[in-house]
Amino acid sequence: MLTDLYQITMTYAYWKAGRHNEESVFDLFFRKHPFQGEFTIFAGLEEVLRFVSSYGFSADDIDILRKKFPDWESTFWDYLGSIDCKKVKIYAVDEGSIVIPRIPLLRFEGPLAVCQLLETTVLVLVNYASLVATNAARHRLAVGHSKTLLEFGLRRAQGPDGAMSASRYAYMGGFDGTSNLKASAMFGIPVQGTHAHSFVVSFNSLNDLPTRNLTDSQGEPREFVERVLYYRGKLGKTGTSQGELASFIGYAQAYPKTFLALIDTYDSLDSGLWNFVCVALALHEFGYTAKGIRLDSGDLAYLSKECRKVFLRIAEQFDIPSFAKFTIVASNDLSEKVLWSLKEQGHEIDTFAVGTHLVTCRSQPALGCVYKLVQVNDQPCIKISHEADKVTIPGRKEAYRLFNSSGEAVLDLLISMGTTPPVPMKRLLCRHPFDANKRVYVTPSKVEALHSCWFDGALTKPFPSLRAVRTRVQEQLASFREDHLRRLNPTPYKLSVTSDLYTSTHELWLASTPIAEIK
Amino acid sequence: MLTDLYQITMTYAYWKAGRHNEESVFDLFFRKHPFQGEFTIFAGLEEVLRFVSSYGFSADDIDILRKKFPDWESTFWDYLGSIDCKKVKIYAVDEGSIVIPRIPLLRFEGPLAVCQLLETTVLVLVNYASLVATNAARHRLAVGHSKTLLEFGLRRAQGPDGAMSASRYAYMGGFDGTSNLKASAMFGIPVQGTHAHSFVVSFNSLNDLPTRNLTDSQGEPREFVERVLYYRGKLGKTGTSQGELASFIGYAQAYPKTFLALIDTYDSLDSGLWNFVCVALALHEFGYTAKGIRLDSGDLAYLSKECRKVFLRIAEQFDIPSFAKFTIVASNDLSEKVLWSLKEQGHEIDTFAVGTHLVTCRSQPALGCVYKLVQVNDQPCIKISHEADKVTIPGRKEAYRLFNSSGEAVLDLLISMGTTPPVPMKRLLCRHPFDANKRVYVTPSKVEALHSCWFDGALTKPFPSLRAVRTRVQEQLASFREDHLRRLNPTPYKLSVTSDLYTSTHELWLASTPIAEIK
Repeated sequence: MLTDLYQITMTYAYWKAGRHNEESVFDLFFRKHPFQGEFTIFAGLEEVLRFVSSYGFSADDIDILRKKFPDWESTFWDYLGSIDCKKVKIYAVDEGSIVIPRIPLLRFEGPLAVCQLLETTVLVLVNYASLVATNAARHRLAVGHSKTLLEFGLRRAQGPDGAMSASRYAYMGGFDGTSNLKASAMFGIPVQGTHAHSFVVSFNSLNDLPTRNLTDSQGEPREFVERVLYYRGKLGKTGTSQGELASFIGYAQAYPKTFLALIDTYDSLDSGLWNFVCVALALHEFGYTAKGIRLDSGDLAYLSKECRKVFLRIAEQFDIPSFAKFTIVASNDLSEKVLWSLKEQGHEIDTFAVGTHLVTCRSQPALGCVYKLVQVNDQPCIKISHEADKVTIPGRKEAYRLFNSSGEAVLDLLISMGTTPPVPMKRLLCRHPFDANKRVYVTPSKVEALHSCWFDGALTKPFPSLRAVRTRVQEQLASFREDHLRRLNPTPYKLSVTSDLYTSTHELWLASTPIAEIK
Repeated sequence: MLTDLYQITMTYAYWKAGRHNEESVFDLFFRKHPFQGEFTIFAGLEEVLRFVSSYGFSADDIDILRKKFPDWESTFWDYLGSIDCKKVKIYAVDEGSIVIPRIPLLRFEGPLAVCQLLETTVLVLVNYASLVATNAARHRLAVGHSKTLLEFGLRRAQGPDGAMSASRYAYMGGFDGTSNLKASAMFGIPVQGTHAHSFVVSFNSLNDLPTRNLTDSQGEPREFVERVLYYRGKLGKTGTSQGELASFIGYAQAYPKTFLALIDTYDSLDSGLWNFVCVALALHEFGYTAKGIRLDSGDLAYLSKECRKVFLRIAEQFDIPSFAKFTIVASNDLSEKVLWSLKEQGHEIDTFAVGTHLVTCRSQPALGCVYKLVQVNDQPCIKISHEADKVTIPGRKEAYRLFNSSGEAVLDLLISMGTTPPVPMKRLLCRHPFDANKRVYVTPSKVEALHSCWFDGALTKPFPSLRAVRTRVQEQLASFREDHLRRLNPTPYKLSVTSDLYTSTHELWLASTPIAEIK
């Protein structure tokens, strides 16, 4: 029922015309990469397949619809109630693959009305999933593999479920963890988090601490606050916020082994940093190693470098090498663009927590996947538009990826089903689908079929794990030339068609459009 | 469990410090209007209250968490399992109200740990809801009250649930209907929809029609196709796409009373428009009135005017006045900006169907609501930042809206709880919360309290209906000066504080920050 009304009204019209069971082929594809990029990660396949596996209308659904359309012939409701996907076949690119415009991510084959009905839901499951996975992959490219990326976007997501999808597909695209507890529990994603400003401001002074003790790593309860104050005096940092210091002590008493403090509530460099250092020194004396700090405002490049300097100095002064390696987490309004800019400036951040920009895909919040009928009853069909961009490539098609001798992907090729597929080492003319002047000969070293059958009335193979798909994403990125992946002016990675498909597309196009007449 | 991990880790730290039951006050507010505007519609209150009403951790939740944190003291799990909102009070602005930065949309009062735990989920419920409602209200302002606005965004929404929220809050903000069948069934929103390009391309010729008949409005089955072809010949439009004509006839056979055709599959003016006219003329002869057309590509201003010209001409030529009034629906990639631009150019569109830009809030996909602790144990607290924008206004506060003698809203005023509220006809000094030089005397003609208690351990009053909230939005917009609402350079509508609150805020600010020392 989570669909557009017109799917139902069309179904009735197909049924009235006796065409609902005609054999149809629908392609799901997009027309333009998101984020001014030249690659997109395909995601959402598992959710689509689960949806299709249990597709149908309940008696309650039928009741609602019947009330809405009392004029409709009553035998239609029997038909609608009997619909399932037993006669539907789905061919798809593997989840986690790099995909490009016009390559069908999924191809649906089956009864016209049933395939039509699936449109909206399938689109909503693929669009956002692929968008977030792609966005996440771009963040990973920005920071490289040595940094940790955390998704902290739950509170800014477009609805609770948007948040769940965001966590799942951000992880798939290359993030290391999430703050979202439910997503962690459901999808097995590592979960992380520390504390908020509220925790800090809730403490006013050391009197808010119910105990001044902490049990040391040997199991001995000892006076902890006094030791913190000792280091505070020794470092000459007695002007820092006392409420903040109390909150850090309270937090360390709860988490002596994993103490990580948010230091920007009052003043990062003049208060939070030193309060953290004093507590970390006392923890060290108690046999514990603090973890680090989080910066949530200000100039993150500058602040992280200043903090690292202090850590290095303290490490030396107190001869505690681990202090040099404290984790610095940064979190304030990060985006792919900011990550690149931080890299240019130099910084000492180890972990980036990305929220709004990642989950809402702020720089482009929707991927425009479409679902188009390309064949009915073995008859290819075409949708024309004044914008060549919006014309569909008709007929049942297969897709192949061609590689050069260095193992790099060269182009993706669409061929009409039943025509000869490309084979390694055999020279082949590849054409632009619409521009007659763009042609190239390719002799591929390797050829990969992009589609395989995932559903034939029922699932045909098991789903790979989320972790496996996540790995696939990184492997795919490694198989593409860097200039296709870069942020600024990436080189387009091209779609081609065979000569056969070029010709049949253009013949059908001409046959389908009236010639306008200007008098 | 749909929350950030750090809410749980903080709860444990509060509990360890014996502070979990301390009486706290949290404000939920935002810092900046979305869409470069000067107003925001508050939405999501009902969902927040429903969430709080049934808040708690199940035994399964506790099991998951216990496995994750095996070191934690075991009596903590008993405490966590016992948590509910029986001691929580929630004060809120009415849903559907215009709100401004820094006015608490909601104020939570109750045990520190419980109020803290609610943060993330409450934010996710308010952020997107308010954003979409505001976006929808802006679309309504762009087209005025005589046009119909439909939400067609399901397929491009950020996840299935994002789509449900989008439909609900777009309607609240001023849309007239949705394409989303499930949202219609759940929230009682009017649902609309016609057919897709797929339906058109699935027909190849008139032979695809199983019957050439249609039962006329008197119940008499008659030859319909022949009559359509008669008008086609009479109008001299025999060069149009025959497949498209067949699909329109098929659609009219299913929907003779509500026939509305998508005319841009091959060529709007040279094919679709005339195919529609021929079918509409035949329907008229059969006693039915066609509804209109949908345009989904091209220059919508130009195309709608050309179509209207043809409708007027045919209305005159065949003496059928209703033909002049065919509904023209437009749908391709519309946005608030495009709606304004169409208005400037002039057009003949009656109904706008808005998708991606509305539901993903493309021009600003997130509203930055925050949830800040402002008081613990009757002690106001403050969060400082180098950006004055990010400093919180401490303490328990009430908000009032002051109106001038014309009934227009003048400003919103925050006062400390327990200080004298503003009264009509009494002169009052209103201050900018942070800028010492900005002050104004106001003698309001009317004063409205913005907050009321919605939850006190349980709901305190029934929810208004979605329709009532929708009406409230339009009433609120009518009570604001137009220059606050306009699209380009709107006049800021200001937040003020009393002198008392100004002074107490700044005293606490100075007391909370160390003075940096430059040597």
